[in-house]
Amino acid sequence: MRVAVPLSQAYKLLNHGPVTLVSSAHQGRRNVMAASWAMPLDFSPPKVAVVIDKGAHTRGLVEGSGEFVLGIPGKALAGAVVAVGSCSGRDGDKFARLGLATAPAEKVGAPLVEGCAAWLECRVLPEEHNQHNQQAYDLFLAEVVAAWADDRAFRDGRWLFAAEELRTLHYVAGGQFFLTGDSLEVPA
Amino acid sequence: MRVAVPLSQAYKLLNHGPVTLVSSAHQGRRNVMAASWAMPLDFSPPKVAVVIDKGAHTRGLVEGSGEFVLGIPGKALAGAVVAVGSCSGRDGDKFARLGLATAPAEKVGAPLVEGCAAWLECRVLPEEHNQHNQQAYDLFLAEVVAAWADDRAFRDGRWLFAAEELRTLHYVAGGQFFLTGDSLEVPA
Repeated sequence: MRVAVPLSQAYKLLNHGPVTLVSSAHQGRRNVMAASWAMPLDFSPPKVAVVIDKGAHTRGLVEGSGEFVLGIPGKALAGAVVAVGSCSGRDGDKFARLGLATAPAEKVGAPLVEGCAAWLECRVLPEEHNQHNQQAYDLFLAEVVAAWADDRAFRDGRWLFAAEELRTLHYVAGGQFFLTGDSLEVPA
Repeated sequence: MRVAVPLSQAYKLLNHGPVTLVSSAHQGRRNVMAASWAMPLDFSPPKVAVVIDKGAHTRGLVEGSGEFVLGIPGKALAGAVVAVGSCSGRDGDKFARLGLATAPAEKVGAPLVEGCAAWLECRVLPEEHNQHNQQAYDLFLAEVVAAWADDRAFRDGRWLFAAEELRTLHYVAGGQFFLTGDSLEVPA
């Protein structure tokens, strides 16, 4: 079941460095791409940084709408993560082509990709200096305005991975991922 | 054995989102901190983005020298990752206090923390716009000028984790990590 994650806990959804699915929508078009280069940027209000290449169809939708969703896919979506990188949204709706179901987000127009372990609804920070980041480095800085998790994966501020298909993914290259592995607790 | 990683492959050392140790040195002082908020920013020349808080002793050393090393610690260093976050370099040399051995880097003055699985030697990008990123978001953008790996962990462009103590770490919060888990290959 998808449950709200308090914004103060949202950084934990991305802190361990999983691969993400960036979904976007603008003026009747929508798209989804994979991004490994995403990280938290602040705790409260939560912010994120993500690299979105100039060549990506997603780029125009994010620039146009000022919004995106970072989905955190689990193992069951590994094939989709590779597939969304193997075709362009310019050639037709990727969700339809790849059979990816979506649900509406709460605060942004970009859709939530169904089947993810967690989602961060994001609004691009509008400051003038960020235009330079976007142009020079393809780097988008955004505020997290809503956060969600499948409660089989993340509950009460902790990743559980009670459902193996929601175990998150860390991308390396060439279709190779690492699954998020065993938990290791170090006494502070 | 520590071996050079070609700069074209350097992004793979950080792509899967492991926690990092940021080491720095300036004017006879040196320090090390932990950072989960680090990611690749470009392939070639390789660049990285990392968040270094204004309150961190490391901050002044990185601003002063324009250099740092991102070490990628393995399981054996999990305790050190937590420990470096539990004391400040203002109170004395953390390496000595925590028994962390170092080796000289090749291109920068910051030391390599011995026992890591990999290392990225980095030079801060000097552009004026990045002053704003550093002040407003604690966000440092840097070019990777040399890269190294323990060849029991990473060899020929691939993570092997042949030595379990070098299996990399993904930090969540409160002393909890996830180990980098099983490999999952998706045909492209």
